[in-house]
Amino acid sequence: MSKTRVGIINVTGYVGIELARILCQHPQIELVSITGRSAAGQKIGKVFPSLAGLDMTIDAKLGDVDLAFSAMPHGESTAEVVPLLNCGKKVIDMSGDFRLKDAGEWQIWYGHPHPCPNVISQAVFGIPELHAKEIHDTHLVANPGCYSTGAILALAPAAKAGIIEADIIVDSKSGVSGAGRSLKLTSHFCEVDDDVCAYSVEGHRLMPEMVQEIGLLYADPTPKITFMPHLIPMNRGILSACYATLKPGKAGLNAKEAVKEIYREFYADAPFVKVVDDPPHTKHVQGSNYCHIYPTVDARTGKLIVLSVIDNLGKGAAGQGVQNMNVMLGLPETTGLGMAGMYP
Amino acid sequence: MSKTRVGIINVTGYVGIELARILCQHPQIELVSITGRSAAGQKIGKVFPSLAGLDMTIDAKLGDVDLAFSAMPHGESTAEVVPLLNCGKKVIDMSGDFRLKDAGEWQIWYGHPHPCPNVISQAVFGIPELHAKEIHDTHLVANPGCYSTGAILALAPAAKAGIIEADIIVDSKSGVSGAGRSLKLTSHFCEVDDDVCAYSVEGHRLMPEMVQEIGLLYADPTPKITFMPHLIPMNRGILSACYATLKPGKAGLNAKEAVKEIYREFYADAPFVKVVDDPPHTKHVQGSNYCHIYPTVDARTGKLIVLSVIDNLGKGAAGQGVQNMNVMLGLPETTGLGMAGMYP
Amino acid sequence: MSKTRVGIINVTGYVGIELARILCQHPQIELVSITGRSAAGQKIGKVFPSLAGLDMTIDAKLGDVDLAFSAMPHGESTAEVVPLLNCGKKVIDMSGDFRLKDAGEWQIWYGHPHPCPNVISQAVFGIPELHAKEIHDTHLVANPGCYSTGAILALAPAAKAGIIEADIIVDSKSGVSGAGRSLKLTSHFCEVDDDVCAYSVEGHRLMPEMVQEIGLLYADPTPKITFMPHLIPMNRGILSACYATLKPGKAGLNAKEAVKEIYREFYADAPFVKVVDDPPHTKHVQGSNYCHIYPTVDARTGKLIVLSVIDNLGKGAAGQGVQNMNVMLGLPETTGLGMAGMYP
Amino acid sequence: MSKTRVGIINVTGYVGIELARILCQHPQIELVSITGRSAAGQKIGKVFPSLAGLDMTIDAKLGDVDLAFSAMPHGESTAEVVPLLNCGKKVIDMSGDFRLKDAGEWQIWYGHPHPCPNVISQAVFGIPELHAKEIHDTHLVANPGCYSTGAILALAPAAKAGIIEADIIVDSKSGVSGAGRSLKLTSHFCEVDDDVCAYSVEGHRLMPEMVQEIGLLYADPTPKITFMPHLIPMNRGILSACYATLKPGKAGLNAKEAVKEIYREFYADAPFVKVVDDPPHTKHVQGSNYCHIYPTVDARTGKLIVLSVIDNLGKGAAGQGVQNMNVMLGLPETTGLGMAGMYP
Repeated sequence: MSKTRVGIINVTGYVGIELARILCQHPQIELVSITGRSAAGQKIGKVFPSLAGLDMTIDAKLGDVDLAFSAMPHGESTAEVVPLLNCGKKVIDMSGDFRLKDAGEWQIWYGHPHPCPNVISQAVFGIPELHAKEIHDTHLVANPGCYSTGAILALAPAAKAGIIEADIIVDSKSGVSGAGRSLKLTSHFCEVDDDVCAYSVEGHRLMPEMVQEIGLLYADPTPKITFMPHLIPMNRGILSACYATLKPGKAGLNAKEAVKEIYREFYADAPFVKVVDDPPHTKHVQGSNYCHIYPTVDARTGKLIVLSVIDNLGKGAAGQGVQNMNVMLGLPETTGLGMAGMYP
Repeated sequence: MSKTRVGIINVTGYVGIELARILCQHPQIELVSITGRSAAGQKIGKVFPSLAGLDMTIDAKLGDVDLAFSAMPHGESTAEVVPLLNCGKKVIDMSGDFRLKDAGEWQIWYGHPHPCPNVISQAVFGIPELHAKEIHDTHLVANPGCYSTGAILALAPAAKAGIIEADIIVDSKSGVSGAGRSLKLTSHFCEVDDDVCAYSVEGHRLMPEMVQEIGLLYADPTPKITFMPHLIPMNRGILSACYATLKPGKAGLNAKEAVKEIYREFYADAPFVKVVDDPPHTKHVQGSNYCHIYPTVDARTGKLIVLSVIDNLGKGAAGQGVQNMNVMLGLPETTGLGMAGMYP
Repeated sequence: MSKTRVGIINVTGYVGIELARILCQHPQIELVSITGRSAAGQKIGKVFPSLAGLDMTIDAKLGDVDLAFSAMPHGESTAEVVPLLNCGKKVIDMSGDFRLKDAGEWQIWYGHPHPCPNVISQAVFGIPELHAKEIHDTHLVANPGCYSTGAILALAPAAKAGIIEADIIVDSKSGVSGAGRSLKLTSHFCEVDDDVCAYSVEGHRLMPEMVQEIGLLYADPTPKITFMPHLIPMNRGILSACYATLKPGKAGLNAKEAVKEIYREFYADAPFVKVVDDPPHTKHVQGSNYCHIYPTVDARTGKLIVLSVIDNLGKGAAGQGVQNMNVMLGLPETTGLGMAGMYP
Repeated sequence: MSKTRVGIINVTGYVGIELARILCQHPQIELVSITGRSAAGQKIGKVFPSLAGLDMTIDAKLGDVDLAFSAMPHGESTAEVVPLLNCGKKVIDMSGDFRLKDAGEWQIWYGHPHPCPNVISQAVFGIPELHAKEIHDTHLVANPGCYSTGAILALAPAAKAGIIEADIIVDSKSGVSGAGRSLKLTSHFCEVDDDVCAYSVEGHRLMPEMVQEIGLLYADPTPKITFMPHLIPMNRGILSACYATLKPGKAGLNAKEAVKEIYREFYADAPFVKVVDDPPHTKHVQGSNYCHIYPTVDARTGKLIVLSVIDNLGKGAAGQGVQNMNVMLGLPETTGLGMAGMYP
């Protein structure tokens, strides 16, 4: 049986190169084309020596594929995605172009009208733990933002179980690779090293993804989410600390164990989500597709606290993209994603 | 006029050595004795080559001083502090032994009865921005915890102004030096580098300091504070993100500017607290005694958000200790503390 | 056909856990037993959450295996290795116990007589690029030191070709994981971060490994090697800069290209050694079994300069161990080692 | 008596801002003007919040000063320096424009003819430990490169004493701030963090500074220096490891102690150079103007090994600049430079 032919559009960013790292080891697909504007014509191993073992040349234009990942920036991705859909190809869009269901909301956060609003309804928000069936049945997956993935996985069981008030705080700490490979003072080593700061303090465009997805699970359709991202001097990883007030009657004596049980049940069949017994570290999931979640209760203040960790390039981007691909192709979710985290 | 003779008990930890770094340049005092158990008899510059320029030998026992800093660990500090007080010396205790006014609360958090409860009432909680007069008049200052300093400075103006509900979340990110120089797996480079985690998730002993001090300012005597400390791969610095719901009528159109004005007024005469116009970085205050505070409002969710940054060894420990000493001695608060942050 | 049953003795250090990470994905062997003294009886994923996906319990005593890796410290490893050899098992010793052929030299560097000198002659120094046939034919491989691997691979082609004088300088820079997981002040985050130092300045015990192996290739049996290791604030990776004076007539006009050609030919059939066209970065090989080598010539000074990079836990330890296992078992060298470096 | 009026041209780089940090605390001068092209008109504390305590506005054009530091890039600095000299001002040029005495050599390394060769002879190479008298007597100091400072201080005593062969290897490891604040991929956090690489492998323009200055001390006028700089994931600091063969008769039994004595004597009156008894760390001199030097002998190979550490922005740039200023103005060398290194 011939393998599915897969391509990556814009391999030259951190998400693109992580997709290549995973896909070149995937046993059920063939990586046949990788594109990159400035680096076209060069060997991938010349531009990214970590892939020196992969004998491929960067294309200027995507070759013939059955399924493509678009790792283009938001705003520019639509122009790559739509023609592929029109040719009957399957597409996993790593950008924010098709994640929000409401084109008006999209415009608020991205600053201009959506480039192709009529395609939005075809897109499925790509968290397989929540939407596996729809992902399997669609041709277009909108791969979620890194922060959104960590926060939604942390909050989904509590939202579904209806145990928290709809006023949530998400305080996230991210490595620098989430900001991409392009040059900015805020990614300069000397500015980041031995430093921590909050940013996008007046509003970040991944917050509405959280509201949309938590809202689907929550009885109240529009929970309030105060989201604060921080930049941490590390390469990869996001830790999200989520805080919400437990509803009356939910913060009693056995609240901690009751909450853990809700989480364990919710993720009983999810191979990549582990409900852990100790506060998790981002290093535990570095380089992998895992998400570790630690829910607990502060009895003094009646708060649910949930900590989640992912690798922003793994479960937060490329790993989850490949997991979505597996679901779309009817493969076991874990195919090609078995690597454990790199430690230390 | 002869200079005040000053000593440091237990110079060999990170707080002790930072006190030495500052005090050996202080123009109005004379550093005459530094102690350290294991290193007694050695030149300070042999044990800590960064102080190679300081010609002092580490003592086994404190020499004759007018004022002493105790940098002993909590639990052990009382035994150094009380005899000095009994001899009429002034003492600044860097440990947690005398910070909490309620000996019962102290026992809950430190796990055993307070070693000398009758001295607690003499101690003044050493944040000069809040208690300058009492600090000037006492012989015993309890220098606050690093996390407590950042959070209390961030919340004091809002608490005093009565604009927030008494249910506060403090999410703090600290460098590793706050955990001290003793050896533990959680301070091992390979475990911390490229990692972030929350810790003391079920309760941290600096939280009651925040409750005590914010409670003094707040109409409601016992605000609820959910405190979550995180360990960040950096040496120095604490960023605290504080979240509280604004009271009805306080989250309107000009809320952001109104809140900033409250903060600017509160700290108008505080030389080391800057209310800044952009989200602050810990690097901005590295090596200095400054605290930068950025208050803002999330209009969508009605939340007050306050970000504060300090150097945990500066304003969070040794810097504030020297500031307290200046106040106790009637010197200008800024004497010997003029150094700007080391950048980058 | 049944798979080879493999075990790891002392899985709880950084080398042990990296062996587990690789071996649990290896398609041709079965990891059946992992031991660890203090952690015996616990799930591996409880102690090392990065392996949460691996359902194994840590044993107190090695189970029934065909081949074992000993990740015990030097001095203690012999007591594990010899009984296994006596039972006819194959062993890969990750320690320094069997690397030096001369028991007298061993005693000089390790400070006491060799614990089992009569077994030394059975051991093969485990660099497959140099000793593949002997590795295939032996029951005992002495896996080389991390620094030795990088330096020997960098110098072997020039030594074999006889183009350099026998007076070599090796200046190496290593990440902290090479110092292991045990607690020491020199691995404390605050001491290492934003710091670099040289150590073992008066002599390091991996130097004689270099002399032994380069000596085998070099006409002059005892080249002089000045070796200086440095500790760098990073987790993984070793960069070695090697300097030697080119012999008369070897530093001429086309020296650079001639040298490159010698290196390319030497490693033409080595799947894990890449002779690269730009100065290499340790990050290029992070988490992989690759070694990238860049040879060049300083025409002004007549020096050969060779830069090599490895992951000290990959090609410098666990990766090379698995490569040696593949050779011993008659498998393709690259089996289970195909992963590209993790970037960034 | 009125204070000397001092200015900084181009304060907005890392060297400029470090000059400002030191000079604003200097008791004998007045910092009256700081310039910066893009940031002109803004408060310095707005652009660099670490200087929030300094109430100065960035000028477009240098105000009236007695002495100026030019922190312009090489090639551009001459155009600032020469007019100031012509007006009788004293100038300390932080760039490479006036360091090399030979305009032909300058052209080889900087790629174009020297912009003002007739001024070169007025310039004094600004290492006060070597050229104090000339520095005092000149109006133009060429502040040395950071690498050059570390290497020259490490090698000067041995060169002067004539104990080494004239074939020297300098292997240096630098923090990223040495590469400046401008944006390049090689300063991107994700590329540098957890990485080490060599660069300028085919030749670095600070090497001829070393040859020039060591040549002045050495009997043989043109020693050969093989120089290899490395980039380390840290902010500040340079460690240089220097290797040279001891001359016949110099590597005997007491060579180590004899060499140390030569170094101690050479630097007996140098307040900022410490000959230390243990291998030095860059962290020991972080934020200070100190240089720690550790000379030793490898008896097996007959090599002199000298390790030196400086802060590349301290003794490697701004600190040494201020030291030069003190010498020019006839002040004690240490004025305003007493701060100890920031540790940890």
